[in-house]
Amino acid sequence: MTSSDESAEDRLIARYFRPLAREAGAFALADDAAALTPPPGCDLVLTTDGVIAGVHFFPDDPPQDVARKALRMNLSDLAAKGAKPLGFLLAVALTKETDEAWLSAFARGLDEDAQRYGCPLLGGDTDRTPGPLSVSITAFGVVPHGGMVRRATARAGDRIVVTGTIGDAALGVKLRGDASLGANWRLSPSMQAHLLQRYLLPQPRTALAQAIQHNASASIDVSDGLAGDLAKLCRASALAAEIDAERVPLSEPARTALAAEPALIETLLTGGDDYEVVLTLSPDKLAAFSAAAQAVGIAITEIGRTQIGEGARFLKDGKPLTFTRLSYSHF
Amino acid sequence: MTSSDESAEDRLIARYFRPLAREAGAFALADDAAALTPPPGCDLVLTTDGVIAGVHFFPDDPPQDVARKALRMNLSDLAAKGAKPLGFLLAVALTKETDEAWLSAFARGLDEDAQRYGCPLLGGDTDRTPGPLSVSITAFGVVPHGGMVRRATARAGDRIVVTGTIGDAALGVKLRGDASLGANWRLSPSMQAHLLQRYLLPQPRTALAQAIQHNASASIDVSDGLAGDLAKLCRASALAAEIDAERVPLSEPARTALAAEPALIETLLTGGDDYEVVLTLSPDKLAAFSAAAQAVGIAITEIGRTQIGEGARFLKDGKPLTFTRLSYSHF
Repeated sequence: MTSSDESAEDRLIARYFRPLAREAGAFALADDAAALTPPPGCDLVLTTDGVIAGVHFFPDDPPQDVARKALRMNLSDLAAKGAKPLGFLLAVALTKETDEAWLSAFARGLDEDAQRYGCPLLGGDTDRTPGPLSVSITAFGVVPHGGMVRRATARAGDRIVVTGTIGDAALGVKLRGDASLGANWRLSPSMQAHLLQRYLLPQPRTALAQAIQHNASASIDVSDGLAGDLAKLCRASALAAEIDAERVPLSEPARTALAAEPALIETLLTGGDDYEVVLTLSPDKLAAFSAAAQAVGIAITEIGRTQIGEGARFLKDGKPLTFTRLSYSHF
Repeated sequence: MTSSDESAEDRLIARYFRPLAREAGAFALADDAAALTPPPGCDLVLTTDGVIAGVHFFPDDPPQDVARKALRMNLSDLAAKGAKPLGFLLAVALTKETDEAWLSAFARGLDEDAQRYGCPLLGGDTDRTPGPLSVSITAFGVVPHGGMVRRATARAGDRIVVTGTIGDAALGVKLRGDASLGANWRLSPSMQAHLLQRYLLPQPRTALAQAIQHNASASIDVSDGLAGDLAKLCRASALAAEIDAERVPLSEPARTALAAEPALIETLLTGGDDYEVVLTLSPDKLAAFSAAAQAVGIAITEIGRTQIGEGARFLKDGKPLTFTRLSYSHF
C-alpha cells in the first residue's frame, strides 16, 4: 500500500498547524506525543481552559481572535501564577461547516500570539463534532521549584493590587448583545470600540509574570469577575479583604458608562472576562513591584488590603456594596 | 459579602473531582493551575486526546467507562512513547442533561483508573455545552532525557512487534451497532461480550512502557487501525514494512468471525480503537523485550520486518492485500 494513506485529519493538521510547530519537541505534529525538557530546578505550571462557540464567543467572531482568546485565557492563568510560558497543546473540535478560510485565519491568529508571548504549539488533537466548535488549550509554564504563586498564601495586612482596568469586557459583551446601550451609556464610537475589543481579546499580563513571582504573596487570574475571584483568594487564604470600590481602576469608557448608569457598578465588579491579575503583597514589596510594572508598561493599582476575618468587602463611602451575585458564570 | 460565593461549577468540582486530586500539586483543584515537579534529568511526554458523545462513544455507555476510555486513550499514547505516567488534566464539557448520577459514576471510573495506572488528576476545566458531552484529557509522562520513543526512528532490518490482539474493537463497534452480526459471525455470547468490551474499554500497555523505552527503535499507538498506523510509522521513518498477515495476532472471537466472513480481514487490520502498540526493534533486542513482556503478562507477536523502501505491505499467501482505506477516521 503505497497509495496515499494520509487521512483528511492528517492533511488538515499538516496544512494549518504543522507550520506553527517549530519546536523540536513538537516533532512537526507527526508523532503520538510531544517531548518537553523542563529547565533544571524548576516546577512546571499546568493549566487548561477553553472556549465553545455560542458560550464563550460569538460564532461570527473573527477566527484569528477566537484562537488568540483561547490561548490568552491560558496565558493569563500562567501570568497570575508567576509562570513564564513554555508551550501549549491544542485540542480543537471542528464542525462540518468549518471551512478552509476559517481554519487558515484561526491558525494565523494562534501563531501570531504563540510568537508574541513565546508560547509555542507543541501538539494537539483534532476532531469533528456535531455540536458547536470548541477549542481547548493546555498551557505549560515554568517557575522556580516551589515558586508557583498560589491563591492560598495571602497574609493579613497585605496590600491588594490589580492590573489594568476592571469591567471593560463585561460592558463589551453587553454592548455586543445590544448596540443601543452605547447611546444609553453616552459612549463615543471609539469608547464602544474599546469595550468591544476588551471583550474580544484579553491582554494577558505575561510581561508581569516574573515580578508577580518575585513579589506577590498570593494571586488569582480575574476571569469570573473581580468580586468573585477575590472572594476565592480570600477563602483559600482564610482571610478577609477590604476594597475601596472608588479605587478599582476603570477605563474612561467604563467611567463614562458608570456615570450614566450607576447600577453598572455591579456589572463592572462581578462581570467576567477581565483577564487581569489581582494579587496580594507585603507592603514592603510594593515599591519594587510598582517599578517592575512601570518598566513593562502595565498599570497597577492598589485597591485595598487583607485582614483577619473572611469575605471580600467592597466599600463605597464607607458602606459595603452588596451584589446579587459575585461572579459571572457560563456554567 | 460573606454570603456563599461558590458557583455551581465550584460546587460540582468540589463534590465530584476534588476527592480525586490527592497530589499536592493539584492544590485540591482550588487554584488557577497545577504545579508539577519534573524528575531531574528527564523529559516530559505530553499528549492530548478526547472523546465526544455520539462520535467516540455511545451516549448510553456507562459513565465510568467513558471516563476510563478517555484516560486510557492517553495512557496508550504514553505507553507507546515509552513514558511512565505522571498525571493528567481533565477538560469536560457537560450538557444540561448531565445529572449527578452520571457525574458520580464518571468520577468513580476516572479515579479507579487514575489509581490503577498511577496517573493522578492534577487539574482541569469544567464547562456547559449546548452540544454533545465531551471529555478532553491531557496526560503527562516521563522518559529519560532524549528518550521518548518516536515514530521516525525505525531502522531497516528491524523486527516489527505488536502487543495484544488486533481488530477486536473494530468488530465490537460493528456488533454494538447491529447485534445480528453475532449470529452471522457464529460467535457465542461470551465471544460477543469480549468484542464489545474491547471496544468499550481499551487496555493501555502501560506495564510495557519501560521495556518499550529500553528496546524499541520506533513505536506508535495503534488507535486508527494497524495498517494505517504502521503506514504512518513507515512514512515517518522513510522505510517500508512487510507484514505477514497470518501472523497478526487475533483473539479467538476475531478468528471465529473471520472464518465465517473472510472479508473481515480489512475491518480487523484497518479498524480503529485497538489501543495496542506496534513497535520496531533491532533483532538483538527481541529476546530481552519478550522476557520483559512475559514478566508483565502482556502477549507480544512478531509480525514482520522493516526494509528499505516505502509503504507497509500486508502479505497473505505471498500476495499483498489491498484495502479500500487504511485507517478508521472519525474525522
